[in-house]
Amino acid sequence: MSERVYNFSAGPAVLPLPVLKKAQEEFLCLPGAGASVLEVSHRSKSFEPIIEAAEANIRKLLSVPDNYRVLFLQGGALLQFAMIPMNLLKGTGKSADYAVTGSWSKKALSEVKLIGDCNVAYDAKDTGYRRKPSLSEMKLNPNAAYAYICSNETIEGVQFQEYPDFGDVPMVCDASSDILSKPVDISKFGVYFACAQKNAGPAGVTIVIVRDDLLGRSDANLPSLLSYAKLAEQKSMLNTPPCFAIYMVKLVTEWLLNDIGGLDKMYAMNKEKAALLYDTIDNSNGFYTGHADKEFRSLMNVPFRLPSEELDKKFQDEAKKVGLTTLGGHRSVGGLRASIYNAMPREGVVALREFMVDFAKKNG
Amino acid sequence: MSERVYNFSAGPAVLPLPVLKKAQEEFLCLPGAGASVLEVSHRSKSFEPIIEAAEANIRKLLSVPDNYRVLFLQGGALLQFAMIPMNLLKGTGKSADYAVTGSWSKKALSEVKLIGDCNVAYDAKDTGYRRKPSLSEMKLNPNAAYAYICSNETIEGVQFQEYPDFGDVPMVCDASSDILSKPVDISKFGVYFACAQKNAGPAGVTIVIVRDDLLGRSDANLPSLLSYAKLAEQKSMLNTPPCFAIYMVKLVTEWLLNDIGGLDKMYAMNKEKAALLYDTIDNSNGFYTGHADKEFRSLMNVPFRLPSEELDKKFQDEAKKVGLTTLGGHRSVGGLRASIYNAMPREGVVALREFMVDFAKKNG
Repeated sequence: MSERVYNFSAGPAVLPLPVLKKAQEEFLCLPGAGASVLEVSHRSKSFEPIIEAAEANIRKLLSVPDNYRVLFLQGGALLQFAMIPMNLLKGTGKSADYAVTGSWSKKALSEVKLIGDCNVAYDAKDTGYRRKPSLSEMKLNPNAAYAYICSNETIEGVQFQEYPDFGDVPMVCDASSDILSKPVDISKFGVYFACAQKNAGPAGVTIVIVRDDLLGRSDANLPSLLSYAKLAEQKSMLNTPPCFAIYMVKLVTEWLLNDIGGLDKMYAMNKEKAALLYDTIDNSNGFYTGHADKEFRSLMNVPFRLPSEELDKKFQDEAKKVGLTTLGGHRSVGGLRASIYNAMPREGVVALREFMVDFAKKNG
Repeated sequence: MSERVYNFSAGPAVLPLPVLKKAQEEFLCLPGAGASVLEVSHRSKSFEPIIEAAEANIRKLLSVPDNYRVLFLQGGALLQFAMIPMNLLKGTGKSADYAVTGSWSKKALSEVKLIGDCNVAYDAKDTGYRRKPSLSEMKLNPNAAYAYICSNETIEGVQFQEYPDFGDVPMVCDASSDILSKPVDISKFGVYFACAQKNAGPAGVTIVIVRDDLLGRSDANLPSLLSYAKLAEQKSMLNTPPCFAIYMVKLVTEWLLNDIGGLDKMYAMNKEKAALLYDTIDNSNGFYTGHADKEFRSLMNVPFRLPSEELDKKFQDEAKKVGLTTLGGHRSVGGLRASIYNAMPREGVVALREFMVDFAKKNG
């Protein structure tokens, strides 16, 4: 394949084509730098404006209040699963509440168990991870160090449409697969974090938005690169940050601000794209079956099944031939999944919808 | 500046131009993938051969023995400063020996102190960090968990020409600024690690070569992404690795194998490049003063001073005008520094040498 396809990968995922073109254009020589963005010092006049712009763009897009820090870290969500209890739980004598609503919050739970006390406030296992809990469905501890949720479960395709209100207990949210896909009130969260490789950039950088007062909970003995307080103090530059990934986040957030026009517009586009697929599923007379309960359907990841595994496979194979790729479900659950993040163009979703309608006619 | 300069940055540093051009060429569409390398799943047929080739190339270049794992991690050397004692010291009841020979080993010492017992086996402070110790100069503990060295101090420009032999005590080596610059006998080391952004690729990936028997020392309760054992078991893919940085390491190691012809040749070229500058310093009648004692001079980083701070600044300013950039010494020590890693072409070093000779004539 020497031509670009419609790539429905769950992550690393499709990036906006204008962003890729811009990065390609200045790949050998960043304007004014005389060198590639890969080659300049992170403390140089060439790079500092890049990390500053990436932060400013995120602050603008998400209206991040002044009492929150925006950090650019490494290690993906998996390292945050450990850093959160290291920074917010260890040494507090408290326990943390976890809502388990799919594979990623389950993984976060397995990491917190290595570090401190935790309480499973909710587990959607009995429902097959098809839904999110309401506040009253969770067994909450009013004295918890924090309450942990995953806003969108990438594998199961279930998403909070409204966030619970945990009162004085800080809400910690893994937004890896829906950050920047819609407006969010950051003031509701204690920590709002996301790996970049779905909606914000390439793999290799993790965005952590953390409220100032939570920095102070750090155990003073944490290794430097695992301490939110030390990282915040040095504006994510305790050592060399993942410069290129941050540069890409700057370009993606510029695209969201200037080409798309902000998160309200992005959200409207994402709702329309998702409806194109969910309507096709719902109008297929049972040929296609969605995974999530309707009211918790994700706008980002659309997992579905056909009447048999053979048809699942045939669907994938034939879709690939017409340039609709990476439609396999996660290896842990099987079936199919179309991830339709910000950068997936409407035309790609329309092409998939038409393929689905056609495939159902021929095989239904 | 819209043209590329000779960039003497200490890191992130210059990359081989053929590597940058290749990455630029396939930036929008990795051959066979239909998508950018930034957009493909790390578990796809497009990416798995890339990480496998990066590992195979490193194994070939450094003749890595079969009982060593090659890991691609995140967090730079600074996170390794913590992961090493977390994995090799914690829970052993032992202490670790550290040889402090400059800024980076000093930083490693400050991180190990947060985690376990350590012993300063040597500190070059009284010499102004101008030299490396011989075995007999170090106060070693025969029962140490490991003995830690930094093979090349990037800031002070001091390099081990021969490595000490710690006998049965595993040698742990930070090779961030000289990995892949010369052949090394990996079997002498317990852990040999390096951030990539000097000789191996861009910022965002850290190469850790670790001997099998040391994986078993891990405290079972380490968070997944901080455990060498868990990372090795999943071949660095516990979660999404920094795919693009690994792809660049693959291209850089291909360049070393195919364009350069291996590390013996690279080493010869690096010796010749360094000699061009050190000879200029030594033949300047005291106008230029090198930092390191001659027998410990680094082939990678050449720090030097002029007779006054005013001349240091004038040198930098005038050099920049003729396309010789990033020659300032590290903010902690001042003066000047030319970093001449693998990818700095001989022509760049010759241009700097000519500039130095000329500047000394005019200002000496």
